[in-house]
Amino acid sequence: MRETDPSSTSTPLPDEELRALDAHWRAANYLAVGQIYLLDNALLREPLLPEHVKPRLLGHWGTSPGLNLVHTHVNRVVRHRDLDAICVWGPGHGGPAVLANSWLEGSYTDAYPDVTRDAEGMTRLFRQFSFPGGVPSHVAPETPGSIHEGGELGYSLAHAYGAALDNPALLVACVVGDGEAETGPLATAWHGNKFLDPVHDGAVLPILHLNGYKIANPTVLSRLPEEELDALLRGYGHDPIHVTGHDPLTVHQLMAHAMDTAVDRITAFQRAARTEGDTRRPRWPVIVLRTPKGWTGPAVVDGKPVEGTWRAHQVPLDQVRDNPEHLAQLADWLRSYRPEELFDDRGRPTPQVLACVPRGQRRMGSNPHANGGLLLHSLPVPPLEHYAVPVEKPGTTLHEPTRVLGDLLAQVMADTAERRDFRIVGPDETASNRLQAVYAATGKAWQAEVLESDEHLARDGRVMEILSEHTCQGWLEGYLLTGRHGLFSCYEAFVHIVDSMVGQHIKWLRTARRIPWRAPIASLNYLLTSHVWRQDHNGFSHQDPGFVDHVLNKSPEVVRVYFPPDANTLLAVADHVLRSRDYVNVVVAGKQPCFDWLTLEQARAHCSRGAGIWPWAGTDDGGREPDVVLACAGDVPTQEVLAAGDLLREHLPELAVRVVNVVDIARLLPAGEHPHGMPDSEFDALFTRDKPVIFAYHGYPWLIHRLAYRRAVHPSLHVRGYKESGTTTTPFDMVVRNDLDRYRLVMDVIDRVPGLSVRAAAVRQRMADTRIRHEAWIREHGTDLPEVTDWTWHG
Amino acid sequence: MRETDPSSTSTPLPDEELRALDAHWRAANYLAVGQIYLLDNALLREPLLPEHVKPRLLGHWGTSPGLNLVHTHVNRVVRHRDLDAICVWGPGHGGPAVLANSWLEGSYTDAYPDVTRDAEGMTRLFRQFSFPGGVPSHVAPETPGSIHEGGELGYSLAHAYGAALDNPALLVACVVGDGEAETGPLATAWHGNKFLDPVHDGAVLPILHLNGYKIANPTVLSRLPEEELDALLRGYGHDPIHVTGHDPLTVHQLMAHAMDTAVDRITAFQRAARTEGDTRRPRWPVIVLRTPKGWTGPAVVDGKPVEGTWRAHQVPLDQVRDNPEHLAQLADWLRSYRPEELFDDRGRPTPQVLACVPRGQRRMGSNPHANGGLLLHSLPVPPLEHYAVPVEKPGTTLHEPTRVLGDLLAQVMADTAERRDFRIVGPDETASNRLQAVYAATGKAWQAEVLESDEHLARDGRVMEILSEHTCQGWLEGYLLTGRHGLFSCYEAFVHIVDSMVGQHIKWLRTARRIPWRAPIASLNYLLTSHVWRQDHNGFSHQDPGFVDHVLNKSPEVVRVYFPPDANTLLAVADHVLRSRDYVNVVVAGKQPCFDWLTLEQARAHCSRGAGIWPWAGTDDGGREPDVVLACAGDVPTQEVLAAGDLLREHLPELAVRVVNVVDIARLLPAGEHPHGMPDSEFDALFTRDKPVIFAYHGYPWLIHRLAYRRAVHPSLHVRGYKESGTTTTPFDMVVRNDLDRYRLVMDVIDRVPGLSVRAAAVRQRMADTRIRHEAWIREHGTDLPEVTDWTWHG
Repeated sequence: MRETDPSSTSTPLPDEELRALDAHWRAANYLAVGQIYLLDNALLREPLLPEHVKPRLLGHWGTSPGLNLVHTHVNRVVRHRDLDAICVWGPGHGGPAVLANSWLEGSYTDAYPDVTRDAEGMTRLFRQFSFPGGVPSHVAPETPGSIHEGGELGYSLAHAYGAALDNPALLVACVVGDGEAETGPLATAWHGNKFLDPVHDGAVLPILHLNGYKIANPTVLSRLPEEELDALLRGYGHDPIHVTGHDPLTVHQLMAHAMDTAVDRITAFQRAARTEGDTRRPRWPVIVLRTPKGWTGPAVVDGKPVEGTWRAHQVPLDQVRDNPEHLAQLADWLRSYRPEELFDDRGRPTPQVLACVPRGQRRMGSNPHANGGLLLHSLPVPPLEHYAVPVEKPGTTLHEPTRVLGDLLAQVMADTAERRDFRIVGPDETASNRLQAVYAATGKAWQAEVLESDEHLARDGRVMEILSEHTCQGWLEGYLLTGRHGLFSCYEAFVHIVDSMVGQHIKWLRTARRIPWRAPIASLNYLLTSHVWRQDHNGFSHQDPGFVDHVLNKSPEVVRVYFPPDANTLLAVADHVLRSRDYVNVVVAGKQPCFDWLTLEQARAHCSRGAGIWPWAGTDDGGREPDVVLACAGDVPTQEVLAAGDLLREHLPELAVRVVNVVDIARLLPAGEHPHGMPDSEFDALFTRDKPVIFAYHGYPWLIHRLAYRRAVHPSLHVRGYKESGTTTTPFDMVVRNDLDRYRLVMDVIDRVPGLSVRAAAVRQRMADTRIRHEAWIREHGTDLPEVTDWTWHG
Repeated sequence: MRETDPSSTSTPLPDEELRALDAHWRAANYLAVGQIYLLDNALLREPLLPEHVKPRLLGHWGTSPGLNLVHTHVNRVVRHRDLDAICVWGPGHGGPAVLANSWLEGSYTDAYPDVTRDAEGMTRLFRQFSFPGGVPSHVAPETPGSIHEGGELGYSLAHAYGAALDNPALLVACVVGDGEAETGPLATAWHGNKFLDPVHDGAVLPILHLNGYKIANPTVLSRLPEEELDALLRGYGHDPIHVTGHDPLTVHQLMAHAMDTAVDRITAFQRAARTEGDTRRPRWPVIVLRTPKGWTGPAVVDGKPVEGTWRAHQVPLDQVRDNPEHLAQLADWLRSYRPEELFDDRGRPTPQVLACVPRGQRRMGSNPHANGGLLLHSLPVPPLEHYAVPVEKPGTTLHEPTRVLGDLLAQVMADTAERRDFRIVGPDETASNRLQAVYAATGKAWQAEVLESDEHLARDGRVMEILSEHTCQGWLEGYLLTGRHGLFSCYEAFVHIVDSMVGQHIKWLRTARRIPWRAPIASLNYLLTSHVWRQDHNGFSHQDPGFVDHVLNKSPEVVRVYFPPDANTLLAVADHVLRSRDYVNVVVAGKQPCFDWLTLEQARAHCSRGAGIWPWAGTDDGGREPDVVLACAGDVPTQEVLAAGDLLREHLPELAVRVVNVVDIARLLPAGEHPHGMPDSEFDALFTRDKPVIFAYHGYPWLIHRLAYRRAVHPSLHVRGYKESGTTTTPFDMVVRNDLDRYRLVMDVIDRVPGLSVRAAAVRQRMADTRIRHEAWIREHGTDLPEVTDWTWHG
């Protein structure tokens, strides 16, 4: 590794500051090693014995010294310049490093008073790390100052951009590990700089940390010739500052200079944009930091090189309790940081160590942006009455639900124009999903070239569109975690692209809810539309309703799933989710013209119950039990159930049919399994205990069984839904192919209700004939049967 | 748009060839428009009337002229140079373009004889497009020459690299759309060139097609200054060739020159590597093609600019049946291609049109690499006997199952050293997953810098490691679809990263299986390890067993899921999946030391049944029905069930316990729901019809209910599994936290078996006490109870 020439820097650190920075860094390194290894003898005031060492050695040393270096030097510029800064730690496996820094600056003790900033607290800090009942080995919700879990990799830079949006005074440093840099989500997140407004947004300072290795391999970026890497970063729109070295004092000089240069440039760009009206897209700085993996750790273990290789990834010395040589190496390693210079008699960090540490909320572990709920304001959701559609008779007028919602969202956008704490993200689908009314209130964020023919692009726009679901999700997570509000509108099938990300966010929320000092944040709200039943031209590849199955596998205290069946119910659901906290809300709604079923008042009542009988839609006369229950969840299933109700009313008027609509699908779960779960008594009152229930569901039918298998009526429950019979075809053909159509539902009823009249067999045949007629018609005309397309509800 | 100066090119096309290429391109454009619009009057031999137009206008025009240009010019170099080439069409929404080209070259008629290459066939081609019962609007399995679905975006370049691996004579052109280029998976797929061996692999020629717009927005890459884009591509390791223009004849000249230059450079690099021993990593060419979106389509519609804007994305004229002006514009548009010059009296393409078209298998729609099953050879899986572990008594010896599998895979690697048709991909986890034995037979593919301290890196290695699950998946899909074999080894939690990709691959396989001309390909095999129960140091973020839930939502004819409980069953399962065709096989197996339960012979028999009683493990004496069934699926649940069996044998010896182990989880489904589903009679024989069944399952417990809810015994089925009670802790603590531990299982038995002796209550209390003791022990020692860690099966 060729070191960057320090003489090329113009501001060498004064000797005293250099030594203080190095002391801070050594202290952090010492504490990182201590967390991985020590149960006791934290200050090494007595000879190290096997019993001082943890029985299970867990943790990631490799990345820790680099993270410590970054933390030390961000501390320095924050303190020098009184910056408002947080850091996203991409290589979050280096939990020991971030925990060490939080302990040093005192934010850890503020959050966890029993882990005091002295010898006793240090022992606790060490012991709890990766210990059962203790703290995770990664940066996690438990870590003060973090908005980013260090488990799965790939999302740091998108999180950093999300945090910087609409925070003009904030600097978000973001350490990108060279392992993580190989992931797809990270590789495209660099383009966030084309969406960051230097006037209204803060700055992101990426620090690409090349320590050269992943778990067992060199990293791609670390093995590129420097000019190739430099071209890549310039191609990403950045102006790189390279810091390469392994001599600590030299690297401190280089890094201090790099940080100063970067912050100077950022400040200059912001000033030019904010006070001089400069609209050129800044070439923001990026720091490329090359230091050895496991830097300052054991150079050679058991005759094999460790420092500077992949062998330093986790625990460099792994036999410390049993192998005296390892034990001696560990003692030497710990002593190499000269702890006696760093901690006083009582184990408190010395003034020299703390010289670079900022004060109060400027400490990164105490910055409120990293505990965003502290900064959160309620979202001004306007009265729904202004947006509701009139419904004189159910099922006779049509509206596009998402378009109706768009008007509401436009008002939210308008009402947050000053506050700037609400954003909509989506992969180029906001208009396709018919939310374009929002463009009356704000534009689409865009800092790249603008042509005359463009529409709605704006430097300060708060709709974010990039053809990357990963980036949309990452931006929104970062935005929410720093105390703002938002909505992700997405094609239903392609939201699976972020399955893994939402899983991690749910885990974050579940953990954060149990941490007293973490304030609640706004929920992550999905609007899934362009859904499985209306992919008329996109076909099979665009048909997948399984995201809700994925989400419902996760912590019930966090996940909520809604299927509003029409425009007014969508408004009522949206009103709720936009005001909620600490949830992941999935709302599945159509963008195509859809029958209006409920007035706003009815919609509100229905949504607050989450599931209920639609008495006007059935033929059971209130009191007595019905012969059959037709249940539905989702806009298309609701339409087919209501149409089936019409057919039954016409052909088998003696049959007592109850129609139940489910908006909040978790209501089907037992009360003990989900906060929205229904007690059996309520469930039985809705669905009966033993009558046939034909359930038309939006997604995979077995989800309903998985939710309802404990109910008394379950043996009589028959579910229709999407069963991967997909293709490019008409809306009605889609429901026929999946046996969800009105005719099939009537046949299901006839097949399952005992003791029907002989006429029922004829009705059944008539239904079957209509389905055959449908097939012939569509092959000939390419359109749906006129009696289907012309249908409105008779009631 | 500033055109590239054509005088800068050195090989202008001869006039005759130029006109022929343009005729081919015009013909393809005509056919693309015809597919979107026409039901009849295909050759426009009579005036265009509304009834000639489809009632529903579906399809994507915007990208089609660019794809047609690329196809025309790839045709040219293939024919000139007798190249073996296929093309991956990233902007696959332009299905009309690829279908048009296939029809022109005759490969379409070869695959679908009723769609003849004449007027009648042209009418069929038009009518079937995006028509119910017809063909999808995207490039799809139905499209000759395709290995890449055009629905979801992001995977084209990884597919292209996968296709090129171990195909030294193949050129894989890959059109990357500028929309798709924004996705994460695509953004990192560019780094594939650091893994492509110029000696043993073929070449990938990316063609970045910048038509400027997505659905409703400009694209990021198209709005970068050219020098910034150029830097980005150089940073990705490519040497860009820019082609910019809108005058067709000029662009033909430029594109022909660009293709010649690119192929010349590729040939030179390959020659240098293959015959001159040049080991420098080539800076492979990339073509940057800038042409207008919807090029040659209507310039202005209803007073708004369309050609060259996002409005050209789908159907530029959308009121053709009702708006006479639109109808006239469509007629003019179609006639602008001068169809009378392109098709003869009978509607056959003229010789001029076909002049650039290759012959036979050189036609891209007929190239066998794009129907890889034609080229597939059986994988030489060695006899399992050489790798099986000896089992004298069950549950007394330990092996790491994946390490045992690694030895087998090493032999497969060795036995395919010449054939080079087997690869292992993984995100830097092959060794972590304990498959490192394969490095004795091959290295890790790596073309970037190599240092002395590196191990196992090799230019010709067939293990592919990059920290991108997307890239691993994309490479493997491309490799399999071109007729080779492979395995994806992945951490269980992080395989969710490719949820969406595997969904698309399953859809591809389901569709391909129904297409007679598509030959079966090797299955996509996942080895999921480092699983939920053994994330001792990584904790909650690494705990997610839900991938199998996702996969089991998809087409049953394609998906298979296996939970081998020990080393020998893993061998038996691996033997099966490596030989299988057209499946997605998910194998979940541990890498940590695991008890050996079955001999190889027993394992084979057990795996071929997929589920069965382990009579030696239970206490029911064969004939009579047991009092309780303890069922298990997965290595850790199997261990806990067997340990619970020991406890029951010791404490309640009078209880008749049956132990059932399930390897093939789909066996739990009814016979009609999955090809592996069990008939009720068989299910009842295993699990009884009414006895308590305590099922210890590896993943989310409700999956078992979703599979088994129709069975007679279901009301008595009680499932334990992972319920998101995760953290950084010991293996046994994990099962305790999720109520899957042996003591809890015994309590479950006692709670559910009626009529037990009074002693049972005392046993139950003892179990509960042990769980409490566990908690105290772990808080103190950080390790599991000695009686758990020391346990071996008593039997």
